[in-house]
Amino acid sequence: MSTITNSTNIFWQECQIGKPDRQKLLNQKGCVVWITGLSGSGKSTLACSLGRELHTRGKLSYVLDGDNLRHGLNKDLGFKPEDRTENIRRTEVAKLFADAGLICVASLISPYRRDRDACRAMLPDANFIEVFMNMPLQLCEARDPKGLYKLARSGKIKGFTGIDDPYEPPLNCEIEIKQENGVCPTPTAMAGQVVSYLENKGFLRS
Amino acid sequence: MSTITNSTNIFWQECQIGKPDRQKLLNQKGCVVWITGLSGSGKSTLACSLGRELHTRGKLSYVLDGDNLRHGLNKDLGFKPEDRTENIRRTEVAKLFADAGLICVASLISPYRRDRDACRAMLPDANFIEVFMNMPLQLCEARDPKGLYKLARSGKIKGFTGIDDPYEPPLNCEIEIKQENGVCPTPTAMAGQVVSYLENKGFLRS
Repeated sequence: MSTITNSTNIFWQECQIGKPDRQKLLNQKGCVVWITGLSGSGKSTLACSLGRELHTRGKLSYVLDGDNLRHGLNKDLGFKPEDRTENIRRTEVAKLFADAGLICVASLISPYRRDRDACRAMLPDANFIEVFMNMPLQLCEARDPKGLYKLARSGKIKGFTGIDDPYEPPLNCEIEIKQENGVCPTPTAMAGQVVSYLENKGFLRS
Repeated sequence: MSTITNSTNIFWQECQIGKPDRQKLLNQKGCVVWITGLSGSGKSTLACSLGRELHTRGKLSYVLDGDNLRHGLNKDLGFKPEDRTENIRRTEVAKLFADAGLICVASLISPYRRDRDACRAMLPDANFIEVFMNMPLQLCEARDPKGLYKLARSGKIKGFTGIDDPYEPPLNCEIEIKQENGVCPTPTAMAGQVVSYLENKGFLRS
């Protein structure tokens, strides 16, 4: 006698309307733009600016923000390493959005390389575009938009990325956002860098 | 000294492009069409047919199928009551799709009334449209498209909805799909019933 276990007795349902149909309707290609970097590196700023720029061009995008996800889907998760991993695993929601035809902009610290690579492996072809916010820790800490570095330095919060938990920079990201001659690019310039990439790779047409 | 707990130190990020902008781009209103009913009651059939019909009208929809979700996002979950509840809680993904401006078609047995009501409570206004596949158990069991009723009757699987786990019919669903004079509506007729509702309620324009 067998018992019901996970993923047993489950059949995959295929619908006749698929990703290519939705892409044609939207005149774009579904993909995931994954923005990784330290707290305060400008992930959310880029995500918002990119969303605006794409909308101006008539393209449908949706921002999945790590903090926002933690208010809903992932509200049962904390910041232990295994919770961070699960937090990102559930971001396979991004995969569903890409399948729906949207340009999904995921903005998460996502400090561990293996977790980001696991997300990349979920997406077919070159539909995972990793954007590394390569900003110095000193700059992020000086910005400290949420006051979290201060709390981490004073020991009031533990396991904070960049302070007492590691950030592993990407080895093969598609796009790197960094300072030029000590100056940070503007939000518009950052978004422009990503839009140019998407345009050149054919994501902004079906 | 405090420690990091769930949903602590998390700030909600607002982007300037919001649901109204996306709805205008798509010329439709984001919502969740939640199809509930026994295994074999025709949920997936309706979902597929509805997706096709909406696509024909130039509307963007996306089907979240309970079985498909269990292959991905919810693959850590089984069929115990608490797992069923969590399976549905995570279907707040549907809420994200509605926020993205899509007509999200969620097809899940979702046997417990409190779980469906919890989903309804997550959506603002009247953006949760509950569709009850009101088909007799005998009919579903005679169809048995996945051979699961047979396994449940023979005791090979446990906790099967309608056999040894309850199905609680909706009390106030927006749409009821049922037999007329002992005849089941065709997939096109079922989809037409939902499309008419969406049209009348203004979901097919922005």
